[in-house]
Amino acid sequence: MHRERPYNQIRKTQITPYYLEKHPASVLIEMGHTKVLCAATIEEKTPFFMKNSDVGWITAEYSMLPCSGDGRNNRDTGSHRNGRNMEIQRLIGRCLRTAFNLQYVKDLTVTIDCDVIQSDGGTRTASITGAFVAAMLAFRLRNISSHVCEKKIAAISVGMVHNEILLDLDYQDDSQAQVDCNIVMDEEGRIIEIQGTGEKKPFTLSELDTLLSLGFKGIQELMVLQEQALQTPPPPLCKSF
Amino acid sequence: MHRERPYNQIRKTQITPYYLEKHPASVLIEMGHTKVLCAATIEEKTPFFMKNSDVGWITAEYSMLPCSGDGRNNRDTGSHRNGRNMEIQRLIGRCLRTAFNLQYVKDLTVTIDCDVIQSDGGTRTASITGAFVAAMLAFRLRNISSHVCEKKIAAISVGMVHNEILLDLDYQDDSQAQVDCNIVMDEEGRIIEIQGTGEKKPFTLSELDTLLSLGFKGIQELMVLQEQALQTPPPPLCKSF
Amino acid sequence: MHRERPYNQIRKTQITPYYLEKHPASVLIEMGHTKVLCAATIEEKTPFFMKNSDVGWITAEYSMLPCSGDGRNNRDTGSHRNGRNMEIQRLIGRCLRTAFNLQYVKDLTVTIDCDVIQSDGGTRTASITGAFVAAMLAFRLRNISSHVCEKKIAAISVGMVHNEILLDLDYQDDSQAQVDCNIVMDEEGRIIEIQGTGEKKPFTLSELDTLLSLGFKGIQELMVLQEQALQTPPPPLCKSF
Amino acid sequence: MHRERPYNQIRKTQITPYYLEKHPASVLIEMGHTKVLCAATIEEKTPFFMKNSDVGWITAEYSMLPCSGDGRNNRDTGSHRNGRNMEIQRLIGRCLRTAFNLQYVKDLTVTIDCDVIQSDGGTRTASITGAFVAAMLAFRLRNISSHVCEKKIAAISVGMVHNEILLDLDYQDDSQAQVDCNIVMDEEGRIIEIQGTGEKKPFTLSELDTLLSLGFKGIQELMVLQEQALQTPPPPLCKSF
Amino acid sequence: MHRERPYNQIRKTQITPYYLEKHPASVLIEMGHTKVLCAATIEEKTPFFMKNSDVGWITAEYSMLPCSGDGRNNRDTGSHRNGRNMEIQRLIGRCLRTAFNLQYVKDLTVTIDCDVIQSDGGTRTASITGAFVAAMLAFRLRNISSHVCEKKIAAISVGMVHNEILLDLDYQDDSQAQVDCNIVMDEEGRIIEIQGTGEKKPFTLSELDTLLSLGFKGIQELMVLQEQALQTPPPPLCKSF
Amino acid sequence: MHRERPYNQIRKTQITPYYLEKHPASVLIEMGHTKVLCAATIEEKTPFFMKNSDVGWITAEYSMLPCSGDGRNNRDTGSHRNGRNMEIQRLIGRCLRTAFNLQYVKDLTVTIDCDVIQSDGGTRTASITGAFVAAMLAFRLRNISSHVCEKKIAAISVGMVHNEILLDLDYQDDSQAQVDCNIVMDEEGRIIEIQGTGEKKPFTLSELDTLLSLGFKGIQELMVLQEQALQTPPPPLCKSF
Repeated sequence: MHRERPYNQIRKTQITPYYLEKHPASVLIEMGHTKVLCAATIEEKTPFFMKNSDVGWITAEYSMLPCSGDGRNNRDTGSHRNGRNMEIQRLIGRCLRTAFNLQYVKDLTVTIDCDVIQSDGGTRTASITGAFVAAMLAFRLRNISSHVCEKKIAAISVGMVHNEILLDLDYQDDSQAQVDCNIVMDEEGRIIEIQGTGEKKPFTLSELDTLLSLGFKGIQELMVLQEQALQTPPPPLCKSF
Repeated sequence: MHRERPYNQIRKTQITPYYLEKHPASVLIEMGHTKVLCAATIEEKTPFFMKNSDVGWITAEYSMLPCSGDGRNNRDTGSHRNGRNMEIQRLIGRCLRTAFNLQYVKDLTVTIDCDVIQSDGGTRTASITGAFVAAMLAFRLRNISSHVCEKKIAAISVGMVHNEILLDLDYQDDSQAQVDCNIVMDEEGRIIEIQGTGEKKPFTLSELDTLLSLGFKGIQELMVLQEQALQTPPPPLCKSF
Repeated sequence: MHRERPYNQIRKTQITPYYLEKHPASVLIEMGHTKVLCAATIEEKTPFFMKNSDVGWITAEYSMLPCSGDGRNNRDTGSHRNGRNMEIQRLIGRCLRTAFNLQYVKDLTVTIDCDVIQSDGGTRTASITGAFVAAMLAFRLRNISSHVCEKKIAAISVGMVHNEILLDLDYQDDSQAQVDCNIVMDEEGRIIEIQGTGEKKPFTLSELDTLLSLGFKGIQELMVLQEQALQTPPPPLCKSF
Repeated sequence: MHRERPYNQIRKTQITPYYLEKHPASVLIEMGHTKVLCAATIEEKTPFFMKNSDVGWITAEYSMLPCSGDGRNNRDTGSHRNGRNMEIQRLIGRCLRTAFNLQYVKDLTVTIDCDVIQSDGGTRTASITGAFVAAMLAFRLRNISSHVCEKKIAAISVGMVHNEILLDLDYQDDSQAQVDCNIVMDEEGRIIEIQGTGEKKPFTLSELDTLLSLGFKGIQELMVLQEQALQTPPPPLCKSF
Repeated sequence: MHRERPYNQIRKTQITPYYLEKHPASVLIEMGHTKVLCAATIEEKTPFFMKNSDVGWITAEYSMLPCSGDGRNNRDTGSHRNGRNMEIQRLIGRCLRTAFNLQYVKDLTVTIDCDVIQSDGGTRTASITGAFVAAMLAFRLRNISSHVCEKKIAAISVGMVHNEILLDLDYQDDSQAQVDCNIVMDEEGRIIEIQGTGEKKPFTLSELDTLLSLGFKGIQELMVLQEQALQTPPPPLCKSF
Repeated sequence: MHRERPYNQIRKTQITPYYLEKHPASVLIEMGHTKVLCAATIEEKTPFFMKNSDVGWITAEYSMLPCSGDGRNNRDTGSHRNGRNMEIQRLIGRCLRTAFNLQYVKDLTVTIDCDVIQSDGGTRTASITGAFVAAMLAFRLRNISSHVCEKKIAAISVGMVHNEILLDLDYQDDSQAQVDCNIVMDEEGRIIEIQGTGEKKPFTLSELDTLLSLGFKGIQELMVLQEQALQTPPPPLCKSF
């Protein structure tokens, strides 16, 4: 049995703020062997579908380095965009837009790049958890009012493996999962987004309730780490930008 | 108030089997003004990642005609694939693969094309409901054992509009929805897939339970219509292919 | 012998105006098993090469649904555009621009989408015949002067199969044709466009004359059906747009 | 009046065989200021749709150098293929396949590249006329039986400008043309392909007959030049390939 | 031994100015069997990264015709741009921008198209040598001050084959080269750009010095030919543009 | 003056081998603020142009994360490949193929991914220096003979800023450089590849000699660090792959 953690324990997690010296609105989030670099950029532009609007826009991009997992994956260049990547970055963007009040970023576009350096399961949920912190750093470094944050969000996966309920699936868990569920919640345990799939076994409403309660436990622990990262003072020469 | 249906009633729905004379494994599913043409094709090939496997493959493609909705949308040609379309067709394919036992389509690829002729909300769930019937017709016309079907599936949307719970959102409902949830279930009400998003209002576990129960009511009604379509005898000259 | 029609008879043809409830400037044209959905959209924009011009623009797009014919064809997505589709949509646009006086659509772009639902030969000529009606509906719904129409146009195919001259080739005729000729004419039998190819047998000027006269017979019959469709009153709630 | 030629005279035309020293199955065809380089390549392969066939394949590619005309045109790279180019190269390939018996090129693909060095109208017809010679050279250099040629073909444009009938339109003629007609014929004046468009004035059958007769006069003159080019002995070191 | 030239002699070279009648700012440069058509176009636009700048822009495009070499190469269309072509056109553009003072082309973009008609080695250096002349012709035809030219540039290849040093490698030399070095210099022998690669044998600084001195000899000879081309008066009807 | 290093000193450099736990043939190379992740993958395949060859293939891919520098750069997805990236990855691949004897990788393809995490100048030379180590680790972990290495290689930039010669330019140096030269050498100071450009000032042979000598000093220092990284024993659980 590869999994030594109890069923209800998240992997060892670390969120390092100001990770990139030249782009301080960035964090490295590590959950076990999964490592994602999240960097937020604020630009004075808005997409064409937001022209003449009184709110700004938040979007995300998600990509995996070719050697981030076992073996090697082709880069997502050329004309055939990777459907999984597009699905994940749409999810990240949607969640971030729920967390923040877009009136505070009028005439601006916030782009959150989530690049997977090493992948061992749970990269989309780690991306959301890290992206929230990176966006907060970007707002602070640009002196945008803290009221921009309407709710705190974090994300975790839950699932069922061999008929047992598990929190925070790593790659090996995930590849055997009967049920796989990604949950994004706010600090009160309300659901921002849920994506659950019973690939190998349909699941009941009662099982779903148990999974969601377990997920909230993990999300609360992640929110403590997010808060610690946000309390870290910026490095000395980090100037607002 | 545009909505005249009770909160717990699906739109007028019709599933027309054998819709295309030259491609009889096809259905037109109409839910209110939403009309989706679902056509299944079985080809003697397997994708490269299934080589030397003892199971076959089921996949889906989803697209909207440019004038299917209000205004006009550009076609999904050229190099920038539409992320929403890719996300939806991945969902359809995943659900269909759960419904069927892929050992019965060894060395084959089943492609379900879901083309939206007219769009008024709920096109992805209508696609899944119609695609299941189209796939069943294709298996039957090719004399594949009925054991290929492991579970029946259908899909419906549920949501919250103005703090009220609604079944089967049309476009106008959807554009005002606080919570939007797409549900795919089997005939026993077990969840195959759930995608819920609290774009304008995070939702509680209790609200989610209510939504899921309401969804199952709609799915049961759709399954009756699926069954009627499958009981319809093929047109006289429709030969197996 | 599959063909039961006399050599000089068109297939059973029906033109249904206002086909899409959400996009009433649309027709379904059915010629035998061939079914094409033609929808016209008028937008307040002009292409870059028409900037500062005192006339507007009419263009067309043509595509076939993947299961419209026998077997299945790949969608025309990705980077390799289908040359046949591009050739056909250029033809449709060119003919439509001849039919209408572009001064009446100054600052506007009219796009005619021709989507083949079922294909059994003659889809490009059916598209032109249907597109003319769809454009007329669009002009009327937008209250553009009826003087926009300079000439009525319709299109038909003629050809030679087994050394015999035939009107309105279906797919089976077409696949055996020695000569294949697509004709677009106005109501006086003058040629708007002719595309003739002697793939299996070069043809003489005298044969061409016979083909063109036969074509005009078919075109006159189609123009009666176009006129009937245009006389049909719009559905009650169809508002100008 | 820019045109000094009589209405029924083609431009000064020259066909230089063996134009490329490193690729001798090539000709430069010059008609007035229009210059097209046509080069034929025979490769031991067949396209996927000709697998297991007892005939080979002939195809063409057509492109214009960016500075071939007035001003500068963007190259046809990137994902938006130029529709006009695709239409023209489909035409060239279709005509060449009519001229030759594909049984003599079994298991081979003949590609004719037609690259416009300078463009002054009539590039598509000059391409066909030159491509026929380039293909003949390629067959001869590879010692393919002369029976491969079933019929000789050449092409010319005819049209109507200011209500007058003209042979071989140059760019200035073409930009004012009411009727523009590209004709491909065999040595007996039979039509291989006709593409006529009445962009500014629909035309009658009688006018079409006159245009076609005039076209045959030009085609006969071009066929003399084709024959002279084919009689030219290859340069000393030109080895079969 | 195929090479009959002494090691320090360039191939027979000819630079024909005003090569295209419809685009007179063009030259054909021939070095042995290598033939490159270089054409300069000046347009009133600047790329987005030069907006609000007080200088203009010079850029280049490089491409080979499919039959320019032995065999046939696919065109650089579609989504996979040819890396070699991009590298070469970046080099040409960079060198040209060094030769000219961009203040004299404020608000303008100069594009130099280098199209290889026949390729026998040294196409990138021939392109640079020809592009310089084409740009000079364009400036003169548009009456831009001759001060735009800050330094004259020309380019040549040098290399080592069978441990011997050679000037101006043709294709056969190049395919056997141990060391291959492309040099761009000004009239005083100063280096504008050097790209040297020891694909089969690393080379010493001392060898590099010898190569560079030999290169300067060739560049001086090319500059005489450039000057002669620039002294050629324009053809009678060539108007400034 | 931002630069505190002496003119002939490289930045603080660190090469961390086995950087990715799931892909141990990887190094992180840090030179000042520049950080590049180099990972080597060996796959049992060869590109089409190496079929039936008795040697294998080594290739490279180079990319920058969007937030690696100041501001944000768009990802290199879609159809317009980034010319700079393609040029750099071609350079890396060419140098690596010179360092190794491809007979030892017969039937294999070695891909070196160089991903820039943070960019502060010199990323292409850091990539080459790191890629050499990553390739060596990959060969060792797969038990390929050490004879595969024919020569050690490393790379550094040199240049001239304000008429002074400098070793190892960072971004600020580079943006002011008159001369910029990337050098790849073997352990004896012989040149594998040189790419020098006098963007703002052409340079003499004598200056080039000085630059190359200075570069060799830096390369020798980098080779000590490469050797140290290669002496580091693999982590305990790192299995050959």
